[in-house]
Amino acid sequence: VRIAILGVGLIGGSIGLAARERADATVSGYDADPQACAAALELGAIDERAADIAEAVRGAQVVFAATPVGVLARTVREALLHASSDCVVSDVGSTKLALEDARQDRRFIGGHPLAGAETAGVAHARGDLFDGATWYLTPTPPVDGPLTPTPPVDGPFTPTPPMDGSLTDGSRTDGISTDALYERLRDLIERLGADPVAMRPEAHDRLMACVSHLPHALANVLAAQAAAACEREGSPLTAGPSLGDAIRVAGANTSIWIDIYLANRAALLEAIDETARGLGEVRAALLEGDADALAAWNERARAAREALLG
Amino acid sequence: VRIAILGVGLIGGSIGLAARERADATVSGYDADPQACAAALELGAIDERAADIAEAVRGAQVVFAATPVGVLARTVREALLHASSDCVVSDVGSTKLALEDARQDRRFIGGHPLAGAETAGVAHARGDLFDGATWYLTPTPPVDGPLTPTPPVDGPFTPTPPMDGSLTDGSRTDGISTDALYERLRDLIERLGADPVAMRPEAHDRLMACVSHLPHALANVLAAQAAAACEREGSPLTAGPSLGDAIRVAGANTSIWIDIYLANRAALLEAIDETARGLGEVRAALLEGDADALAAWNERARAAREALLG
Repeated sequence: VRIAILGVGLIGGSIGLAARERADATVSGYDADPQACAAALELGAIDERAADIAEAVRGAQVVFAATPVGVLARTVREALLHASSDCVVSDVGSTKLALEDARQDRRFIGGHPLAGAETAGVAHARGDLFDGATWYLTPTPPVDGPLTPTPPVDGPFTPTPPMDGSLTDGSRTDGISTDALYERLRDLIERLGADPVAMRPEAHDRLMACVSHLPHALANVLAAQAAAACEREGSPLTAGPSLGDAIRVAGANTSIWIDIYLANRAALLEAIDETARGLGEVRAALLEGDADALAAWNERARAAREALLG
Repeated sequence: VRIAILGVGLIGGSIGLAARERADATVSGYDADPQACAAALELGAIDERAADIAEAVRGAQVVFAATPVGVLARTVREALLHASSDCVVSDVGSTKLALEDARQDRRFIGGHPLAGAETAGVAHARGDLFDGATWYLTPTPPVDGPLTPTPPVDGPFTPTPPMDGSLTDGSRTDGISTDALYERLRDLIERLGADPVAMRPEAHDRLMACVSHLPHALANVLAAQAAAACEREGSPLTAGPSLGDAIRVAGANTSIWIDIYLANRAALLEAIDETARGLGEVRAALLEGDADALAAWNERARAAREALLG
């Protein structure tokens, strides 16, 4: 398989390494930063450096746009402009509604691997970064069962009709069916080591607000509060293991994360309000000295942690 | 040096290992659970098993009470009853005001190492558990400069006069000065690999509310919220790296943690309210789409994280 990677940082570089090692792929890479591209080539994350997006996507069967969220829509638009009619174009951004324009093109299938964290840059890329990781895919028409969540949150799922008139049931139009494009992408992602999960873009973004953007925001609030408490109480600034884990991602790359927070702010605001309600419940139990309520709350949290961490 | 450890779990066992390896200590151990004591002996965390607290503390120069917070006051009381007049008795509990009675005895100096986390039990004990860890000490009379935080939070620090009539300036009374007891404990803790930091009990408890109890409470709230979001949006229950770190301590040992939350609930309530205010500020910036405010907030969090994690 021939793939193109646009933006060879931690995620793009890791896709390249995994695709070359595990899917026998030929990988063309482009990055606005020539040094990142050179490093990716040296690391074996890509086979060829492209001078621009048009050159990178030429002949590709799968394109991954892996640039920061703030420029991702532009990267995807340009990729779709130059990619062939039977190429599937995906991305790895952590919000999916932001790419609404691209969803009008039947070749675009949004994606988002749950991998990578406080490190950044192709120097940290690893071919096993996606092993066992959930990789969300947000195809526009319904492809499989999982696309219809039970119960639906905001009414039944009505797919956006693609602008080129292709049928939403995956019928063939100009040479390759949308289902075939989806399957090609899904199969490749499985070979990268990840677990693909299909989901509606809206549901994905609401979910990310809770499981990714909110943890980053809480880490920010907690880090500032803990540092202020140390100063106030005359303690050296130090973190035990629980605080250390809790603030690991505090102050993540500002230019990337401000774009993410703003791109998903409606869902993030709801998630913050839900957290405030959750804190209100603990507050009430503490105020009443209600040991039973605290115990039940703690047991629910343990069950949730065990379910989430496997 | 001859030391006694009352309660040989993760912390007690690690003190024993470190003291035997690094301070040439002879360690007597007692645990209400005979199996824990047997395991500690087998692991080399203690030299001798004692049948009860009286036997364990006989001849000891330093006693560490390392039982769960719920029974800690009783353990300390019994240790003080049987310990010699020139023995220093300390503990490792995460709240210090709860031991107010013991503070009337000049031989008692509260302590709390910032170490250990989601694991428990002597099987996880390690001789290097305290390497580089902050170990708070809360002596009742002022010993060093650090005891007077700048600026004082709730008025000047007025030491509680010890009941036995010893002078609060560390003068000798019955054979050994309080300063000498403090120095013996501090020196031992340094040999265990930790950094002792003197602090007032009230300040310690307010600090712990922010840097330990609050992170546990937030992990609980977040774990439950994230699991509910996965179910609501039709996703498998899974955690990326940021969520995984953030909920690592969610649902920690219920019987231990309910006691901790309740023992420090006044300070924890204040910490929760401060978090709610912090979330309110982010909420306002998101609502206004204020990228500058979000960037400034994120940069402050980064500086705090770097200061706390070193």
